[in-house]
Amino acid sequence: MRGFDKNDVPSVTVPRLALYLRKLRELNTRGVSRISSKDLAEMIDVNAAQIRKDLSYFGSAGTRGVGYEVEDLIEKITGWLGLDRTWNFIIIGAGLLGTALARYRGFGEQRFRLVAMFDSSATVIGARYGPEESDRVRSVRELDEFCRKESVDIAMVTVPAGEAESTVQRLAEAGVKAVLNFAPVKVHAPEGVLVRQVDLSSELMSLSFYLDKGQDER
Amino acid sequence: MRGFDKNDVPSVTVPRLALYLRKLRELNTRGVSRISSKDLAEMIDVNAAQIRKDLSYFGSAGTRGVGYEVEDLIEKITGWLGLDRTWNFIIIGAGLLGTALARYRGFGEQRFRLVAMFDSSATVIGARYGPEESDRVRSVRELDEFCRKESVDIAMVTVPAGEAESTVQRLAEAGVKAVLNFAPVKVHAPEGVLVRQVDLSSELMSLSFYLDKGQDER
Repeated sequence: MRGFDKNDVPSVTVPRLALYLRKLRELNTRGVSRISSKDLAEMIDVNAAQIRKDLSYFGSAGTRGVGYEVEDLIEKITGWLGLDRTWNFIIIGAGLLGTALARYRGFGEQRFRLVAMFDSSATVIGARYGPEESDRVRSVRELDEFCRKESVDIAMVTVPAGEAESTVQRLAEAGVKAVLNFAPVKVHAPEGVLVRQVDLSSELMSLSFYLDKGQDER
Repeated sequence: MRGFDKNDVPSVTVPRLALYLRKLRELNTRGVSRISSKDLAEMIDVNAAQIRKDLSYFGSAGTRGVGYEVEDLIEKITGWLGLDRTWNFIIIGAGLLGTALARYRGFGEQRFRLVAMFDSSATVIGARYGPEESDRVRSVRELDEFCRKESVDIAMVTVPAGEAESTVQRLAEAGVKAVLNFAPVKVHAPEGVLVRQVDLSSELMSLSFYLDKGQDER
């Protein structure tokens, strides 16, 4: 019943949709009800033609001279991104980064729900990581059984680099279909599993590009 | 003395350069010395024409039928991104996320060097965060003086959402020119300061898009 085929949507469009959504929600909070692609473009540093093209993959077009209805577009993008439902995720690796992610408030706002956290170290198994008494780190030995019993959509991997590959393999065997790998090492994606690599230094690289530019201009 | 003007480079090209660089380094490690834009495109899910266009902003072109020399291209992109020098960064907010970032190994590989960490809470000031005896959390009261004495290029902000705006303002007053904001709130960029917002849930949104697609296809 969709008006588009997701296979036609370029992979680079998807993160931009998330960017548009964030800005549109902010505009909506501020009471803005309509926006032109030109004004939106200026706010987020993507050109207007790109925005129109990205949205056109989904068959949505603003009205010429009127622009987009903010609330309507929020609802549409939310649906396109699959954010009109709740996604359950687990975290493997209860170190500093894993625990920080467990407490990151931004996920809940997007209906991503942390359902369990796992670690292999006896010193952290059983430790509390969230507000509920039952939010306690489980042993990775329970991973397989947990994933088969519960509905787990996504796994975040925050284990040491040397354990990332085997962890992703284990998740695949447990039936998990999507992995966000925070370990600073590229892992092989098992057949049928979506793996996205998060490199926290990419953002720093973008900054250094512009800082370097600033220095050229002096 | 550069062969290009960074102002001509679209902002969306910059994160892609980081992506190309990562893949090229991986190829180099594996002993691959040459790569076509087509083969590179397949590996990283960006189309070949886009890769050629991105690289063309810098005046670099592969040889038709031969492709790019891997080592040469690594060196060039490293220079374009400003990664041929060391960048000093500080972290404001010694909570879980700040401490996790302090220990993240990926930064050092890119010549990003953590020079200090700050917090406002007496319970964490003085706590050790790194391998050196001197790696201890400083009071934010020392921030201004530290930034004036030391060369600080970038600040990562990992304070609670409610303190992000005032923290960025304070960094601007201390002369810091680039900020990476991890707090889950959009902050206003003071005049002359580059602020990039890191939203850890963007990556989850991209996954949900593709997961949703997978379910459509069943």
